[in-house]
Formats: sequence, structure tokens, C-alpha cells
Amino acid sequence: MNRFNDLADFSREEIGALLELAERLQQQPEPRALEGKVLSLLFLSPSLRTLASFQAAMGRLGGSSFVISPDMSIHGLETRPGIVMDGAAAEHIREAVPVIASYGDAMGIRAFAERRSLQDDLADREFENLASLVDVPLINMESAIQHPCQSLADWKTMDDLEVPAQNGRFVLSWAFHPRALPLAVPASTVQMAAMRGMDVVVLNPPGFDLPETIMDKARAAARVSGGSVTQTGDRREAMEGAHIIYAKSWSSTQYYGDRLADQAQREELLDWCVDDPWFENARADCRFMHCLPVRRGVVVTDRVLDGPRSIVLPEARNRMLAQMAVLHQMLQG
Amino acid sequence: MNRFNDLADFSREEIGALLELAERLQQQPEPRALEGKVLSLLFLSPSLRTLASFQAAMGRLGGSSFVISPDMSIHGLETRPGIVMDGAAAEHIREAVPVIASYGDAMGIRAFAERRSLQDDLADREFENLASLVDVPLINMESAIQHPCQSLADWKTMDDLEVPAQNGRFVLSWAFHPRALPLAVPASTVQMAAMRGMDVVVLNPPGFDLPETIMDKARAAARVSGGSVTQTGDRREAMEGAHIIYAKSWSSTQYYGDRLADQAQREELLDWCVDDPWFENARADCRFMHCLPVRRGVVVTDRVLDGPRSIVLPEARNRMLAQMAVLHQMLQG
Amino acid sequence: MNRFNDLADFSREEIGALLELAERLQQQPEPRALEGKVLSLLFLSPSLRTLASFQAAMGRLGGSSFVISPDMSIHGLETRPGIVMDGAAAEHIREAVPVIASYGDAMGIRAFAERRSLQDDLADREFENLASLVDVPLINMESAIQHPCQSLADWKTMDDLEVPAQNGRFVLSWAFHPRALPLAVPASTVQMAAMRGMDVVVLNPPGFDLPETIMDKARAAARVSGGSVTQTGDRREAMEGAHIIYAKSWSSTQYYGDRLADQAQREELLDWCVDDPWFENARADCRFMHCLPVRRGVVVTDRVLDGPRSIVLPEARNRMLAQMAVLHQMLQG
Repeated sequence: MNRFNDLADFSREEIGALLELAERLQQQPEPRALEGKVLSLLFLSPSLRTLASFQAAMGRLGGSSFVISPDMSIHGLETRPGIVMDGAAAEHIREAVPVIASYGDAMGIRAFAERRSLQDDLADREFENLASLVDVPLINMESAIQHPCQSLADWKTMDDLEVPAQNGRFVLSWAFHPRALPLAVPASTVQMAAMRGMDVVVLNPPGFDLPETIMDKARAAARVSGGSVTQTGDRREAMEGAHIIYAKSWSSTQYYGDRLADQAQREELLDWCVDDPWFENARADCRFMHCLPVRRGVVVTDRVLDGPRSIVLPEARNRMLAQMAVLHQMLQG
Repeated sequence: MNRFNDLADFSREEIGALLELAERLQQQPEPRALEGKVLSLLFLSPSLRTLASFQAAMGRLGGSSFVISPDMSIHGLETRPGIVMDGAAAEHIREAVPVIASYGDAMGIRAFAERRSLQDDLADREFENLASLVDVPLINMESAIQHPCQSLADWKTMDDLEVPAQNGRFVLSWAFHPRALPLAVPASTVQMAAMRGMDVVVLNPPGFDLPETIMDKARAAARVSGGSVTQTGDRREAMEGAHIIYAKSWSSTQYYGDRLADQAQREELLDWCVDDPWFENARADCRFMHCLPVRRGVVVTDRVLDGPRSIVLPEARNRMLAQMAVLHQMLQG
Repeated sequence: MNRFNDLADFSREEIGALLELAERLQQQPEPRALEGKVLSLLFLSPSLRTLASFQAAMGRLGGSSFVISPDMSIHGLETRPGIVMDGAAAEHIREAVPVIASYGDAMGIRAFAERRSLQDDLADREFENLASLVDVPLINMESAIQHPCQSLADWKTMDDLEVPAQNGRFVLSWAFHPRALPLAVPASTVQMAAMRGMDVVVLNPPGFDLPETIMDKARAAARVSGGSVTQTGDRREAMEGAHIIYAKSWSSTQYYGDRLADQAQREELLDWCVDDPWFENARADCRFMHCLPVRRGVVVTDRVLDGPRSIVLPEARNRMLAQMAVLHQMLQG
């Protein structure tokens, strides 16, 4: 595997093989599988879970990793092409990225959406620009529009709990958050659930519809897998018979990149905080998922998050296990 | 071993076994003992020695570690229960701690005293709160009232130098410091020296008596070990025949948590800087110990610290060796 | 090897052996060569490449490393001798350095020039002061006047590309930079190229001559190796028949440590930006080298840096490979 960037690049069988490998490595540790192998981790955006889970994953397989963030370079990294660098930044990504890549056998890069242009972010222009500078196997650790490691872990989490794939109802619900957040997790999540063959319902308030590009791609996956992808603003309708509610906030797509308009729009939406009444007509065993970090009392109430529905902790732990499988396949073949 | 939190949780024989293991690992390295094992290190307070010595300890045993501090999460970690998280912090310890724990085979946590309430700090309420979120073996890397890794290293240091346990005189002396410091090191130190069977004298100015809870616990240990624990404000009396002076500053306990009152009280105590004359009636081979970091010319003079009495460097090196033993026993059984 | 501080401490044969070892480790990885070995890395100045390449180097050889920077200690590290530490810093290098050293089997230290006194910097007083506190094998990761890891990598890079040693023409050219930079790289570079037996030309504007100490030392090396060392301000003359142009900015040596005078002097020198016309009378295959980080459009134009002459990326990758050889020899003997 030369790139782990988008679940859509893989067949359902390939995903299945990765998940089996994750399971095997959990049951039968291979503490020397990657001995002498090095993973370089470039964080252009902050991280806690991703950094920890990748470092732990390499360690469990007998390899090692190192972490680079822009503040390690003198005055940060310049990203603009063709610029005369007489300002603060002393180094350009055109040198920093290939050099860091060259010290590892594989590389992970995180670069959140800039949220200036929806077209640029949907095309994942910044990440693709960075990726073009890397000639070792590359893992997307969250870009403007992708978070494949999260989605592979989410898939595993549902398999672990035997949540049905065919005819499983998966609700991806927008949730309130004080700040406008990227589209990466919702885009990856809807794709993942569609590929898994689930009946995916995107639930969101007006102005926050997922872009058609994302929905169309997920619908194409659903046609192959036997699933479906729909959208609604009606909470009761969405939750009817749901197996999973996956909560996540994201930017206004109507006013994408317009901070003030987004703010005005979301201010009215404080009641999009997942709470017990949401589950009234869901399945009795409907589970709550979230990629973390999560704001308690804002995105979801304490009683849901601390209650038996919540599977956010095994979901987060699966980050490490899913990534172990990706690294094992990438670096050991 | 499932928890390394308080030397008082262990018998003298168990401590002895750990110290023997430390010695064995020093003589006969086991560079594959912990292969594939991962230690997660959560620093809610700053660290240099503890971070370095734990990372080195895991590396020497063939395992690995990763380091998390709150600034890695977006806007830090929330600790208050039941709060609506619409402020800066984007993540709560109730998610962060168990997730980080789940990536490791064991976890270390550091969280200094908040020094608001003496009762809370003596009960180690914050650390116990964090510990309740962890379900892997846990190491206290300094909490409000415990620093067991330091104390195990200190014990080893005295063994290495054949400082007598029975009838060895151990003076724990308060020292000047411009800021109010936590009680963790003095509390752990007095307990350690009492458990080792030494005659422990706590030497401090008025207003800085160690709380009775700490003294009583140490006295109970002394009854078992055949040592003793006393207190005095008289330097000459304390130092009479001393084998060890262990210097450490701590908060006013009279005005605990009251920054201004503490400041006023300590301003008069600039002469509590360990210097040659302190040793006049001590044993000729009386040693100087300190857990570091130490302020030169404030806590102790250069001539003492750079002189033959000072054993602060082997003491600091023993941090790594003592922790190797703890990790080995925790993770290999 | 107990110290890797200055290429001049080694014979050409010893350098040759290191470079052969680097080549061998690249061809035949030894992922268990340094198992259980620990490298401590102390960065008193910022780093990206050096940190990453050392961590990767240890990982590839089966060892591990940890990183310490002063901000990990409470309020930083004090460096002045004999001071009463009642200010911000809570720890002195006299404790911090030997303690950190004692956790590793070898240590790397980076401490950039203070650029107050040219004599002090030429004598590498700060680094030597730090080095005197270390009793394990020590690697200079860039001091006021040395950057031996960079120079070993540069030597390897020219060997890899079969740039002639005897009769190879090596131009070290000053380049514009908005800030005054240290002398470590130019000093190490001129020494390296002279030791390699090349005809070294230092090209710089008035006021930026390399100090005689540096030039004399390089000339002595050239006498042994059959090379030569000259200086000029004439770009055409310097570049005539050049195999290599190595660009690097450095401080005014006329006004060393005088920030304003240096600034006034360099402001006139914006045209010292390496560009295509510089190569007019060089060899057709003349290569461009730089230690990175490099300011695009300031030190060198995009078309040179992105063109076929530039070998800055393999040069940077060789940092890791050269350091693997140093570490292997230091820690395995």
C-alpha cells in the first residue's frame, strides 16, 4: 500500500483484510514486525489522539516514529509558492516536507482545512500539494476533506459490536459547537458507512447540508455495497430505527469560509446537543459515536456520553489498532 | 503491580525486591524485556527529569513511550465535572485520560498540587480523580502529595552509598525558595526514610510544620521499621550526628493556599540556604541530597552543591534505574 | 569514539571509515545494532532536521532517543556561573546537563552562537562549557563554531555524486539573509572541503571575511590533503570551473555582535542571491548545496533550487545516514 488517504481508494475486500489484520495483531502481537522501520509524523495542525495512537502503533510493532510540527523550524514553515521569503518563516514546505519524508519509511501528514474556499477544500488542494512532495508511503492523518484513519477505526468499532452492515441504520447528525469545524470527519464518515452497506441518513439544520460532491460520492459507494444515503432535517424521521448516531459539528456550507455569517447561523442551533430524548424512536440498543475531542454539554449531554449507549472510548482505542494494520501492510507488505 | 503511587502500599520486602531488580537491570541489561510494550506519559505539569528518565527507562528495556501534555489538545483539557464546555477547552479529561491510557500497557501521570485546599491536596483528590479514569497499571509521576519514583530513587541512592538504615540519621530540612512549592516531595521523603528504618528529623521554621496526617503516617511506618520521626526548628539539634541532609522547600502550611501570607512569612527566611556551617556537628561524611531542580545560592550554596557531600547527580540518575525496576515488574510480572 | 565535535579531530582515513560505515548501514540495515541504547538530545537552540534525523537514526539502529529543551524545565535553564538563582530560572545547566547525560549512552547538544564576542564564539566557549559537564560520548549538534554532522553529510553527498576531491573546485559563497547568522556552518564547511583535498574558494562581500583562525585551520588541512584555500570578493573569478557552490549566509565579521552595524552592512547586499547567471563560467555540472533551512528568493532563486543543479535534498537525507555511522561507531565500537 503506497497511500492511505481515502477509504474510497480501496475495495470492501481490501478494507476487510485490513480489519482482519488489525484483529490479528491485537490477538497475536508482533513486536518485531517493523524493527528498524521509522514513521515520520508531520503535524501542521494540533493533535492528541492521532499523535499518541500513531506513536503507540509503531512502538507495538517494534518500529519507531518522530514528530515534527512547524514551530520546530525557525519561525515556522512557508507554504506559498514562488514567494520571496524575507518575512518571518525561514523554511519552505518544499524543502521541509521531502526532507522529513526522507528520514522515514512512511510518513503521516495532518493539515486541517483552511476553510477559505469550499472548492479548494473539497479538492483537498493543500494536502495534495503536500503529498506531491512525498515519495514514501503516505498516510493522511486528517486533511481538509479526509480522515481515513478515523473512518477505518469507526468501521472496526461497529464490526466489534456486531452492528449490522446491511440494513444497519447509521445517522450522521450535525451538532452544535461554538466554532466552525472542518468537513473532513463528516465527509469520511458518510463515505465509510455507505461503503459498509449501511442505510446512511445525514441529519442537519438548514444551511449545513453536506456538499453534493460528498453526497454523490457516498451514494456511488452505496450503490456498490447495497446501502443508501439520504439527507433530512427532521430528527424524528432520521432517528427512526437507528442503530448508530454519530454526532459531529461542521461548518455552515451555505456560508462556507464566512465566519460571521456562519456564527449568526449556528447561534440559533444550541438545541442540536444530543440528549436522551433523541433516542425515543431509535432502536433500544442504538449507540452513540463521536470522533473526539467532544465538548460535553454542547455537542452531547453528560448522561448520553457517560451512559451505556456511548462507545466513544473503544472507538478511540480502535484508532491505534486500525493504524497498526495500515502501518503493517504499508511497511511489511 | 497494578499501581505505583505510594511507598506505603508496599512492604519493606517488596521495596527491597524492586531495588534488587534495579541493581540487576543495571548490571545485566535486558534490552528486549519490554519489546512491543508502550508506556503512555501524561504531563499535566512540567517535567524534565521525570520525562527523560521514563523515556530512557522504557528504551533501555526495549519498549517505547509517548508523551502527552494538555497543550496538544485544542485549547487544553477541561477538568471540572458537569460543566457545559462552551469556553476555550475542547476536550475533557474524562475522555482524554482513558483514551491515552488505552494506547499504553501502563500509564504515568503527573499533576502537581493545586494548592487551594490542604485537605484536598492531602487526600490527593485530583490525582485520585484522574486515576479513577485509568484501567491500566498506573504510575504516579508526582501528584499533590506523592512522588514515589523520587523516593524509590532516594532509597536506592542511600543503599548504593551504604548509608545506614537502622540508626541512620536523616534530616529533611525546609529551605528557602522564592515561590511556594508543593508538599509532594517532603511528604514522600519523610515516609521513605521512616520506612527505611532511619531516625528522621524534620527541620523547619515556624509556620512550615508538615501536616499531622503526613507525620502520623510516617510515624506509623517508623514503628514497623524500628526508626523514628521527630520535628524541630533548631538547626544544631537537628544536624547533630546526621548522615543525610535532604533539602527541600515547601509551602507555608499555616497559610496554605494563601499566596500573600505565605510570601510574607517566607521573606524572613532567606538564611534557610544550606551552607557549610550547617554541617558543623553533623557526621564528617554527612551527605547532601535534593530532588532537583535546585536553585543555586538560594536553596543551597554552590560550595555545598559542588562539594564532596553532594550526591544529587547519582540521586537523579537513580530515577531512571528505579523506574526501570517498576516498569519491569509492572509490565513483565 | 568519545566525541564527535570537529572533523579536524579525525584523520582522512577515519572519516573515510565513517563514510563507508554509513554506506554499509544504508545497504545492509542493522535494526538491532543499538538495542537498549539511548541517545539523549539536548536542544538549547531550535531544530527540525537535526532532531528528526537523530531520532530516525537511532530508530533505524534499534535504539531510542529522548529530546529535552529548556522550556521543559520550570522557567528555563540558568547558564551563568556563581549566580544566586532568585530570578525566573529554576534549574542550572550544572545540574541539568549531567543529569540528562546520565540517562543516555551518548548525548547530542545543540547551542547556537551567542554572537556577543567573536573570540568566545571562535573558542566555542559555551559548548565547551556544556561539554565539560558531560561524561558520556558527546556529539556536537551545532555549536557557535562547529557543525560536524552537517559537514560529514556534505562530504558523503559529494562522494555519492563522485564530485572530485583532488582538483575539485568548491566555492563557499556568502548569501544574503535578513538576519545575522552564526559562523558554525561556514567554518565547518571550509574545513571539510579542505580536508577532502578540494580547492576551496571562499566568496564574500567586504566585511564578511571569515576570521583568520578559521582560514588558517582550513589551510593547514589543505596542506595535508593536497587541496587549497583562498578567498575572493570576485564572483566570476570564484565560480570559474567550480564543481560546487555551497551557499550560506553569515554574520558580518567586521561588526560581529553589533546588530545595527551588521544590518546596515548587509542591506546593500540583496544581490547576493544565487541565480542562474552565477553559473556562467562554472562547470556545466556545477551543483548547488545548502544546509537548509533556506529562504527561497533571498539566498537562492526558485529556479536554481528547483533545477537540476540543486542537491539539497540528498544532502539533507545524508544527515541521517552520516549520523547513523557516528552513532554506530560511538555506541557499538
